[in-house]
Amino acid sequence: MNDKVMLAHGSGGKLSHELIEKAFLPVLGNPLLDRLDDSAVFELEGRLALTTDSYVVNPIFFPGGDIGRLAVCGTVNDLAMCGATPLYLSLALVIEEGLPMEELRRVTASVKKTADEAGVSIVTGDTKVVERGSADRIFINTAGIGRIPQNVNISGANARPGDKVILSGSIGEHGIAVMSQREGLRFSVPVESDCAPLNHLVEEMLAASARINCMRDPTRGGLASTLNEIAGQSGAGIRIEEEKIAVKEAVGAACELLGFDPLYVANEGKLIAVVPPEDAEKVVAAMRRRRYGQEAAIIGEVVADHPGQVVMTTRLGASRIVDMLTGELLPRIC
Amino acid sequence: MNDKVMLAHGSGGKLSHELIEKAFLPVLGNPLLDRLDDSAVFELEGRLALTTDSYVVNPIFFPGGDIGRLAVCGTVNDLAMCGATPLYLSLALVIEEGLPMEELRRVTASVKKTADEAGVSIVTGDTKVVERGSADRIFINTAGIGRIPQNVNISGANARPGDKVILSGSIGEHGIAVMSQREGLRFSVPVESDCAPLNHLVEEMLAASARINCMRDPTRGGLASTLNEIAGQSGAGIRIEEEKIAVKEAVGAACELLGFDPLYVANEGKLIAVVPPEDAEKVVAAMRRRRYGQEAAIIGEVVADHPGQVVMTTRLGASRIVDMLTGELLPRIC
Repeated sequence: MNDKVMLAHGSGGKLSHELIEKAFLPVLGNPLLDRLDDSAVFELEGRLALTTDSYVVNPIFFPGGDIGRLAVCGTVNDLAMCGATPLYLSLALVIEEGLPMEELRRVTASVKKTADEAGVSIVTGDTKVVERGSADRIFINTAGIGRIPQNVNISGANARPGDKVILSGSIGEHGIAVMSQREGLRFSVPVESDCAPLNHLVEEMLAASARINCMRDPTRGGLASTLNEIAGQSGAGIRIEEEKIAVKEAVGAACELLGFDPLYVANEGKLIAVVPPEDAEKVVAAMRRRRYGQEAAIIGEVVADHPGQVVMTTRLGASRIVDMLTGELLPRIC
Repeated sequence: MNDKVMLAHGSGGKLSHELIEKAFLPVLGNPLLDRLDDSAVFELEGRLALTTDSYVVNPIFFPGGDIGRLAVCGTVNDLAMCGATPLYLSLALVIEEGLPMEELRRVTASVKKTADEAGVSIVTGDTKVVERGSADRIFINTAGIGRIPQNVNISGANARPGDKVILSGSIGEHGIAVMSQREGLRFSVPVESDCAPLNHLVEEMLAASARINCMRDPTRGGLASTLNEIAGQSGAGIRIEEEKIAVKEAVGAACELLGFDPLYVANEGKLIAVVPPEDAEKVVAAMRRRRYGQEAAIIGEVVADHPGQVVMTTRLGASRIVDMLTGELLPRIC
């Protein structure tokens, strides 16, 4: 096989088929994908969730992950945030002519490994190749479908005053890991992306409480923007406490150096849950039993005051309005 | 609103939300999309089809269509080719910084118009923005989900010797339309892309016969590559007759000028169906009742000879092996 991806790999002709048969099927293959019809076909019923995201992260390999792991985690997590059990993913690649085949192999292997961790299958796909300079190495789109258990009803609109706000762990790692790789920054303690599939964590949470009102993963725009989305959708206010929000020392130091506020830095393996007070401790305890929820903590609550706004009690005891991200902090973070 | 797309429109922050609320929801909005949760949630059951395609066509506006119409038609058609009724689409945009907002509006309006024609809804989406020079204007990914009626069992693997091969109309228009726009070529009779949603045509076909074995739309790689796929998947041979394959005069002339064989030029509104001989005329008659099937004709048959190969009887009565596309004819045709 050629050692670089060529335009003809996206032609729909012989080289496209060779790529599918030599690079994709041996790694990603399963009975649904192997049929190679225009669509994957499967039986499913109930309340389903459908989501999509494109991934344009630069660089495509970074400490703690790569664009392949990101593309699976991001979509698995978007399904999980609706309480859905992720089942099937599509995988669509836009590749810049000249991408080393070895890099495509590494990305494909990472997609497979992450899909296995999450327990999902890649069932359909597409590959396009564009001329050198018309894209940056590789962009990936995944769409995903999952099934929502009957008693689950989760939406950003469901936050109610009195509910507790739970955060699954420390913030800012993904953004700082990608940024440091991109800019060639070295920190004494390297920062790794938190990029992880959260669906098994969510299963544990749903088993612990049937009353989780909202879940969302604070990716682009960070914790601050995601909390503002929930406040906006539900029309409730949110108050968080700065001292309850974990930020790893190395992330804090990097943010200080770069002039970033960790509240706005992207995460790819964290979630926020909004849960009635009676169930909050139960949910936190359940989360702490799972690898990706060991540092789960209640960081604040939904309030009747300042509807639609997020306010933070700072370490010094002052109140500060935490707005949605304005402008662009870190382009191409995911 | 700004008159160009900026990096901050992909930040996940304020400008991202403004873009969604001002540019997307007023045009594409529906009860499922309007919730703005991480996934769209709907009830569905049965045999489902899931498909995805990314669209990188250059230029993004061409005679007879644009990247928005293409992105809806391509995915609707991939679902329809499995016999599925297309229902819900995702829409994910990768935009190059600086794209005129007016062009984004035109593309979005075209997505909406085409989705309405096909009877599908855009239920979830994503927007990423990359720096100038890291993508070419706009790339679109759509994934789609549809439901397959109970008695339908369509696959490229199902072609059987004796089956008739039906083609829904003349070939090569999409490829030539895009090519002529890209290269600034003028023909005495302008060629328009055939880009169209074929799902209503397929409904009519399925109502006429419960025994359609394969359907596929000959896009990238053209009629020749698609027939080779069916021959490859089913292990049967296919014989077609050159004189039965309609090529519009302007397309034929353009192909001659450019040195292309219309058998390899992309279509975006045509389909091939493989049907047992008893039902073939019935299916053709049904197709001719619909706008996008008026020129449907039987162009050949599945044979026991030359398994896995496509052979064409030329106008002069000779036999010619029609191979899958080798190399790349027209990059970024879809």
